[in-house]
Amino acid sequence: MNQTGPIRAIRHVAVLYHPKIQQSHDVAESVCRWLAEQQITAWPALTWDETAIRPRIPDMDLVIVLGGDGSMLRAARMAAGYDIPLLGINMGRLGFLSELSPSNWEAQLPHVLTGEYWIEQRLMIRARTWRGSDLIGDHLALNDVVISRGSLARVVRLRTRIDGNLLTTYVADGVIVSTPTGSTAYALAAGGPILPPELRNMLLLPIAPHMSLNRPIVLARDATVKIGVRTDHKAILTVDGQFEVELESGDEIEVSSADHTSLFIRLGSRAYFYDTLLARMAPKPVADEY
Amino acid sequence: MNQTGPIRAIRHVAVLYHPKIQQSHDVAESVCRWLAEQQITAWPALTWDETAIRPRIPDMDLVIVLGGDGSMLRAARMAAGYDIPLLGINMGRLGFLSELSPSNWEAQLPHVLTGEYWIEQRLMIRARTWRGSDLIGDHLALNDVVISRGSLARVVRLRTRIDGNLLTTYVADGVIVSTPTGSTAYALAAGGPILPPELRNMLLLPIAPHMSLNRPIVLARDATVKIGVRTDHKAILTVDGQFEVELESGDEIEVSSADHTSLFIRLGSRAYFYDTLLARMAPKPVADEY
Amino acid sequence: MNQTGPIRAIRHVAVLYHPKIQQSHDVAESVCRWLAEQQITAWPALTWDETAIRPRIPDMDLVIVLGGDGSMLRAARMAAGYDIPLLGINMGRLGFLSELSPSNWEAQLPHVLTGEYWIEQRLMIRARTWRGSDLIGDHLALNDVVISRGSLARVVRLRTRIDGNLLTTYVADGVIVSTPTGSTAYALAAGGPILPPELRNMLLLPIAPHMSLNRPIVLARDATVKIGVRTDHKAILTVDGQFEVELESGDEIEVSSADHTSLFIRLGSRAYFYDTLLARMAPKPVADEY
Amino acid sequence: MNQTGPIRAIRHVAVLYHPKIQQSHDVAESVCRWLAEQQITAWPALTWDETAIRPRIPDMDLVIVLGGDGSMLRAARMAAGYDIPLLGINMGRLGFLSELSPSNWEAQLPHVLTGEYWIEQRLMIRARTWRGSDLIGDHLALNDVVISRGSLARVVRLRTRIDGNLLTTYVADGVIVSTPTGSTAYALAAGGPILPPELRNMLLLPIAPHMSLNRPIVLARDATVKIGVRTDHKAILTVDGQFEVELESGDEIEVSSADHTSLFIRLGSRAYFYDTLLARMAPKPVADEY
Repeated sequence: MNQTGPIRAIRHVAVLYHPKIQQSHDVAESVCRWLAEQQITAWPALTWDETAIRPRIPDMDLVIVLGGDGSMLRAARMAAGYDIPLLGINMGRLGFLSELSPSNWEAQLPHVLTGEYWIEQRLMIRARTWRGSDLIGDHLALNDVVISRGSLARVVRLRTRIDGNLLTTYVADGVIVSTPTGSTAYALAAGGPILPPELRNMLLLPIAPHMSLNRPIVLARDATVKIGVRTDHKAILTVDGQFEVELESGDEIEVSSADHTSLFIRLGSRAYFYDTLLARMAPKPVADEY
Repeated sequence: MNQTGPIRAIRHVAVLYHPKIQQSHDVAESVCRWLAEQQITAWPALTWDETAIRPRIPDMDLVIVLGGDGSMLRAARMAAGYDIPLLGINMGRLGFLSELSPSNWEAQLPHVLTGEYWIEQRLMIRARTWRGSDLIGDHLALNDVVISRGSLARVVRLRTRIDGNLLTTYVADGVIVSTPTGSTAYALAAGGPILPPELRNMLLLPIAPHMSLNRPIVLARDATVKIGVRTDHKAILTVDGQFEVELESGDEIEVSSADHTSLFIRLGSRAYFYDTLLARMAPKPVADEY
Repeated sequence: MNQTGPIRAIRHVAVLYHPKIQQSHDVAESVCRWLAEQQITAWPALTWDETAIRPRIPDMDLVIVLGGDGSMLRAARMAAGYDIPLLGINMGRLGFLSELSPSNWEAQLPHVLTGEYWIEQRLMIRARTWRGSDLIGDHLALNDVVISRGSLARVVRLRTRIDGNLLTTYVADGVIVSTPTGSTAYALAAGGPILPPELRNMLLLPIAPHMSLNRPIVLARDATVKIGVRTDHKAILTVDGQFEVELESGDEIEVSSADHTSLFIRLGSRAYFYDTLLARMAPKPVADEY
Repeated sequence: MNQTGPIRAIRHVAVLYHPKIQQSHDVAESVCRWLAEQQITAWPALTWDETAIRPRIPDMDLVIVLGGDGSMLRAARMAAGYDIPLLGINMGRLGFLSELSPSNWEAQLPHVLTGEYWIEQRLMIRARTWRGSDLIGDHLALNDVVISRGSLARVVRLRTRIDGNLLTTYVADGVIVSTPTGSTAYALAAGGPILPPELRNMLLLPIAPHMSLNRPIVLARDATVKIGVRTDHKAILTVDGQFEVELESGDEIEVSSADHTSLFIRLGSRAYFYDTLLARMAPKPVADEY
């Protein structure tokens, strides 16, 4: 599943930094300077400036992302479909997507140029929204797609089918369809299991379900989830927890695996996932006495 | 906790019916006619017409509510503070608050007039919202008070203190403060325990919490919960799942037990709560084989 | 994943029935008589008589199992490795493994002889127990393998590695490694997600964990889980909830996918899993009012 | 609920230490020597030596316990009914019951002699076991009473009534009836809510329930829970997770609040509970980014 070694020679590198984190501006400048010294063309841009970045992505051999997992999600969606690897320099809290830190990038970046890394491929999902026979939305997500009610004081009913079979009609705050990557994000908060990043499953689970099937369901890569929205108000589709689209009663959202995966450059052990998991989730040292 | 027998002679009765349920109009008419035959003044009104109902409530000896638990919640808030008992004729799904049904009210209502009933008192809670030193909201709830984020794509942080002691800062979809009555409503969907109606505890629990204390906390009747809202967007206060108030970052909500309880007329066994619970929640007959 | 059509011509059929269910004796007799009329050799046996059954299994073309899911589990373990399909006639509560019932087997069995069925393959897992360098146990399971403490009043610590990487040391009642089939059995009771039968994942989750990682983890088919037992008392290995093996402190259990799958004859829709799930788990009709 | 000030003059003090923790022997010696210097009679004993301790308890004015929460539980059960306060010097992991530590007892103990403390009263529960019309067991617990199956491979059914009303028949690993004190122990591992120590509620919850009511239920102080055991094997009653009693099918366990509470000497803030809770349960600092 996970390839080893360089995909292509690195000549053009996008360096994305965070508009609101000053440190990311500073590190971006240092990274660009260092790349220039290696005869590599560095193109700095603000991560949020998608209009400028998207057309330039196909020319890049590598995207370096300075920020937290949120910035990585944006970059992953922009890079999807171009087989361009991402490399994160972490400036948020301990995350699962960034590989380097402000204090070690300088020592590690040379290994990337010489191909001493492995590529981690992570499943993405695609959500297409239908209003009647019109396709009104088509989104990729690396973490999750959430269909939820627009207002706490109104009910939303989500008629959910898997591969054409009715599963149930959730009466809930919403439904999450998550990738393995997303299993440690919002799906975890909503009570879901953990899926290591190499899995090719999707995860389906309701948020605060009323008197309906309340267990997460793990799905095969080739499964299709169709969610029909019924509400007397509005509902909302949220992609990677980062942007929202309004839905109407009657809309149907079809979620399936995307054709493309996200590629992440990894320099350390393949065990990093469990190490990070343990560091983030295990609350305390093991009890000595019961 | 639960008194037996009549609180006062019944001479004036409000009969509240549901604007969208035709059956409730029909039954309301029959109930009013029957009451008139007993020389009792019946005053019919639409449950949602709070402006008309509130000033008339103090003159009533009984409020009959035709609808589901939602209608009962509205009536309970309007009647709070006047020691007027409520009697529900259920027109929704199986609920915990209504005592009668369209098919048995005619047989049972005479028992109410002769005092053959018991009164169930249920705890209410009060939420006061402070913006700086201004009290900008003061609400009663029979089910719950929810402070939540206004938009899925934005974080809300809820700094939560109990009796002045910092509990934690929730990063979550929201926080619920519930009564025992509310423990079988939204709090249940969010993963809370069940509190029988005679308890005088409050229940505090987060909705989809991220990496923070994620267990419900049961509180004493005299506890005070203070929740400070921090968000770069808006947040929302929802009362009994029925109406919403917009909150700003910096607002503080103080939730405590209300001075008054809701009074419900009960004609059957005090065991009704567990019977209803079993009927609604136990999914299937006990397994014969494992 | 799931083949269609006959694997081999059906000439020899084992008919397993339940020692304690009289109806299964009666139906076994009828089934055997019916098979004899079709010139098929029927061999009746009690499901629990493993000593007699195991050596005969390789000669069979089909195993008909009269009982509940428990009987199916026994039969599946005995048939593992011989590519012999199982067909269940259900005499327990609504289960996921049996296809027929006492009232419809006579109408459906002819379809099996003419090849009008599909084969559902379900993942099995294998647990090998090591004491020092000795392999002291080697078990197959269709549902789950559970390592648990032998006594409530004693602690067991379960050091758990995935593919050689330390995950955590559970301080818990036990740890379950489950197949997709087992995800609707004990793992569900312990809080796990649902995995449809066609998945090829394993599921790892603790039972009542103290202050340790408490989320289920979904694993790839080729993953290996190693669980090291530490206790000052004894611990127990349980296979499919049906038999127990005593463990000592220091024992290590290695769980991985088995080479062989279980084969189940299916005559109806491939959607049966979600239909059965909905019938068993959704507690009540969808709410009409909130 | 929580008294302030001395209950009686302190002249006789039991000093209980842990047989397997050498440090507790050393500190016990120092504590006894210090008490002797204050003209107080100190009586050292091993915590597990209940036969020797129980007859001496009524003569004591204070019991000092050197160990972890486990030692405190033993001491609390022995002291129940004598209104003798306990003071813990903690030698286990961070707990909720011990007040002092090996490094601060010398500075704090003088405050106890001068009455500068408050008394925390904690609810205890009582479990009486009936076999037919014979009372075959009568136990007190400060944490919890657990009725569970004796073997993973056998089912236990627990018919559970609250105040005479049938709640449900659990098919589960077991059922916990917990005090607020126990809500942060085994009940927490089994998925229960948190009850601060000043509450006077009991908590009822199943362990790994199959297809039955699976939510914790909070009960009033005056509630009675009756649990009827049905199994074809044996079942087990466990008190405070410390000792086990074998049960037979047909046994009935009646759990209610005990008449006596446990008394703990507290020298610090009444907020200690939330501080400790936060220190133990909140896994990580609040997230900076989502």
